[in-house]
Amino acid sequence: MTKIIVQKFGGTSVGSVERIDAVADIIADASKTAKIVVVVSAMAGETNKLVNLAKNFSENPDKREFDALVSTGETVSSALLSLALHSKGIKAKSYSASQISMKTTDTYSKAKILDVNSEKILQVIKEETIPIITGFQGVTEDGDITTLGRGGSDTTAVAIAAQIGAERCDIYTDVDGIYTTDPKIVPNAKKLDSITMEEMLELAGQGAKVMQTRAVEFANKYNVPVRVLSSFNEGSGTLITLEEESMENALISGIAFQKDQVKFTLHGVGDIPGTAFKILGPISDAEVEVDVIVQNVSVDGKTDFTFTVPYEDQETVIKIIDSIKDEVKFKQMMVDSDIAKVSLVGVGMRSQAGVASRAFKALSENEVNIQIICTSEIKLTMVIDKNLTDKAVKILHEEFDLEN
Amino acid sequence: MTKIIVQKFGGTSVGSVERIDAVADIIADASKTAKIVVVVSAMAGETNKLVNLAKNFSENPDKREFDALVSTGETVSSALLSLALHSKGIKAKSYSASQISMKTTDTYSKAKILDVNSEKILQVIKEETIPIITGFQGVTEDGDITTLGRGGSDTTAVAIAAQIGAERCDIYTDVDGIYTTDPKIVPNAKKLDSITMEEMLELAGQGAKVMQTRAVEFANKYNVPVRVLSSFNEGSGTLITLEEESMENALISGIAFQKDQVKFTLHGVGDIPGTAFKILGPISDAEVEVDVIVQNVSVDGKTDFTFTVPYEDQETVIKIIDSIKDEVKFKQMMVDSDIAKVSLVGVGMRSQAGVASRAFKALSENEVNIQIICTSEIKLTMVIDKNLTDKAVKILHEEFDLEN
Repeated sequence: MTKIIVQKFGGTSVGSVERIDAVADIIADASKTAKIVVVVSAMAGETNKLVNLAKNFSENPDKREFDALVSTGETVSSALLSLALHSKGIKAKSYSASQISMKTTDTYSKAKILDVNSEKILQVIKEETIPIITGFQGVTEDGDITTLGRGGSDTTAVAIAAQIGAERCDIYTDVDGIYTTDPKIVPNAKKLDSITMEEMLELAGQGAKVMQTRAVEFANKYNVPVRVLSSFNEGSGTLITLEEESMENALISGIAFQKDQVKFTLHGVGDIPGTAFKILGPISDAEVEVDVIVQNVSVDGKTDFTFTVPYEDQETVIKIIDSIKDEVKFKQMMVDSDIAKVSLVGVGMRSQAGVASRAFKALSENEVNIQIICTSEIKLTMVIDKNLTDKAVKILHEEFDLEN
Repeated sequence: MTKIIVQKFGGTSVGSVERIDAVADIIADASKTAKIVVVVSAMAGETNKLVNLAKNFSENPDKREFDALVSTGETVSSALLSLALHSKGIKAKSYSASQISMKTTDTYSKAKILDVNSEKILQVIKEETIPIITGFQGVTEDGDITTLGRGGSDTTAVAIAAQIGAERCDIYTDVDGIYTTDPKIVPNAKKLDSITMEEMLELAGQGAKVMQTRAVEFANKYNVPVRVLSSFNEGSGTLITLEEESMENALISGIAFQKDQVKFTLHGVGDIPGTAFKILGPISDAEVEVDVIVQNVSVDGKTDFTFTVPYEDQETVIKIIDSIKDEVKFKQMMVDSDIAKVSLVGVGMRSQAGVASRAFKALSENEVNIQIICTSEIKLTMVIDKNLTDKAVKILHEEFDLEN
C-alpha cells in the first residue's frame, strides 16, 4: 500500500482565504506521491475572538461551554480547506472530532486523547478522498465536546499518525524548523536538520513553542517520525528522529527559555515522607503542568519546597495550596512571577561532563544570578530573573558555539 | 409535573452580546413558572459571514462542507447563551444537533427532521438544567452535519416541542406578532391576537417571513400551540391556535406577498395523464418548493403548464426541465422573474362567498392586472407584476377593512 503522511497545518498557515488556498496547493502536491491525512487548526485569531466573546459573560467561563464554543474555529477551517481542495479538483471531506470518534477524557480545555476511530479514517483514504480533520477537538464518552488545550492540534496529528500507522507526521507552521534558540533573540541561531525526540521533548517542554510537548511525547511513545517545516517557504524543515537514527550528537542542541512561568515556594514544610505528593498530587489532578521541582536539604526537620507552573495556572494553584494548608503544614507561601526558565538541551550532555560549570561560569561572569538549578540527563534548567532572559540566552548561545 | 415551554430565539434576538444578555433575562424570568427548553439561531450576520467565506472557494460549494461550516454559528450562540445564563446563576447546558441526536435526511442544506432524542432533553430538564439547543442543525445517520435551510431553527423548536410534549412553543423574533400585512407597506396594519394554524400556514407559505412554513406544518400536525412574540418589546404576541379554540373568524385575517419568485410556463405540453407528475416529481425531489400550479384547459390536446418557485432555485429548475425535455414534450419554456404573489388568507372565506370577486374588482379598478389566479379553501393567490406589489397590498388591505 502507498505510504500515508499526516500533514498538520497551524493557525497562521490557514490564517486567511489566500493561505488556505496555498495550503491546498501543498496538500495537492503531496497527494501525488502519498496518501494524505490532514489535521488543521483554527484560522489565526479566530480562537482568540471566540475566547473574547466568552469573556463578555464571565472571566472564568464554564469549561464545557467554553470548549464547545472555541472548538468551532477548527470546524470552520476544516470545511474551508476541504472546499479549497474541491476547487482544485481534489476529493476531500472534513471531519470533526465527533465524526471520527476522537475520544478524550472529560477534563475540559485540557482533555487527553483516549482513542480514535482509525478504521473510519482509513476507509476515507481508501475511497481516494483526503480526510481533513479538525485538530484541537475531542469528544467525551457522553458526546460532549472537549479541547486539548492550546497547541493541541499537534497532538491530534501525531495521535492520528500513530493510530493509522502513518509513515511520518509533517507539522507545518510559520517557522522553517527547529533552531538552536529563538532567532528573534539570537539572530544567528542555526536551523537544525535533525534533532532527537528526547531533545525535542526537552526543548518543547521548555517552551520552544514550535510544537506542543504532549505531541512530542506521543511521537516518542509511538515512534512516529515527525518533521517540522514551513507552509510559507519551501524547505525540508527539521526531522525529529529516534536517537539511533541520528547523526553524531552535538554537545548542546539548543537553548530553550520560557517567561510565562510562576515560582511557588512553600517555606518551612515538614520534611517527612509523602509531603511532595500531598502538594503536587492535587495540582497534577487539576491538570496543571508542574516543572522544576526543588526541595532543599532539611534544617531542623523543616525544608523549603519550590516548583514552577505556567502563569495562567497561578490562581488555580493558590486555591489548591490554600485547600491543603491544614494538611501540609508550612510557615509561608511565596509566589514569584518575575522569573524565567532557561535550559540547555542536548543528548551529548550525557557523555560529556562540565556543561553545567561552563554555563554557570559564563552567566556569573556576566552578572546573571541563578536562583534555582535543576538537571536531567540531557537538560540543564536554570531559573533566573525574567528581565535577564534575553541576555542569558545570548551568552549561552555564544558559549556553546551554536552560531550559524 | 410542571409544564414545559420551548422558547426559540432568532438571529436578531441574539445578534450581540447585549442581546444575548437580554434574552438570558427573558429565559430566567420564564423559568420561574415553567420548565424551559431553549432553541437558538446563529447571531445575526454570522451565517452570512460563513456563507461568504465559502464563496471564496466556490460559487456552488459542496453542500456537505457548506453545512458543516454554516452550522457553527448556532454552536457559538448556544454556548454563549448558556454562559450568559450561568452569569445570572441559572443552570444551563448547550447541546448541538449531534448531542441530542437530531436525526435528519441527508439532503444537505434542506434536510428534513426524522427524529430527536427527547429522552436526553427530558433528562437535562430533570436535572434542573435548561438545555440550550442549536437550531438549524441536524445530523445524518452517518454522523454528518446537515442544516434545515434558512429559518430552520423554527422547525427545530416546534419539532422538539412536539417530541417532548411541551405545552407551547414561543417563537421570539424582532416583530411583535403577526400583522394583517407587512406594516412597512401598510402603516396601519393591525397586530392579530390570535390566528388559526391554517391561516398561519397559508400566510407563512406566502412569505409572511415571521415563521418558517415547515415549522407551522409541524405545529399543525402535532397540535403544538405556538406563540410569536418579540424579544425586544414586552407583549403577548400572536397565539397560533387550533381552529376550534379560536374566536369567531374574521373574513380575511391577513394579506401575504412574496416578491422573490419566478414563474415557469411550459407552453404546448401534451394534456395526457402523468404530465404534471413528470414535471413536478423531479423538481420536488430536488427539494424545491413549488407553489401556484396552474394548468389551462386543453386546446387540441395541448395545454400550458405554469408554476412558481423561489428565485434562488431558478437555475436548478431550468436544469431539471432541460433534463426531462425529451420525456415531457413541450413547445417552449418561458421563465419570468418579474412577478409577485399576493394572497388573501382567512378561514372565514370558507363560509362567505364573494371574496374573490371583491378582490378582483378592487384591483381592476386600480389597474392592477392579475396574471394568474389560484385558490384554496382559505386562500386566494394572485400573481401580478412585481412593481405593483405594494400598491395591490394597500388596495386589498383597505378593501377588506383590516386597518387598525
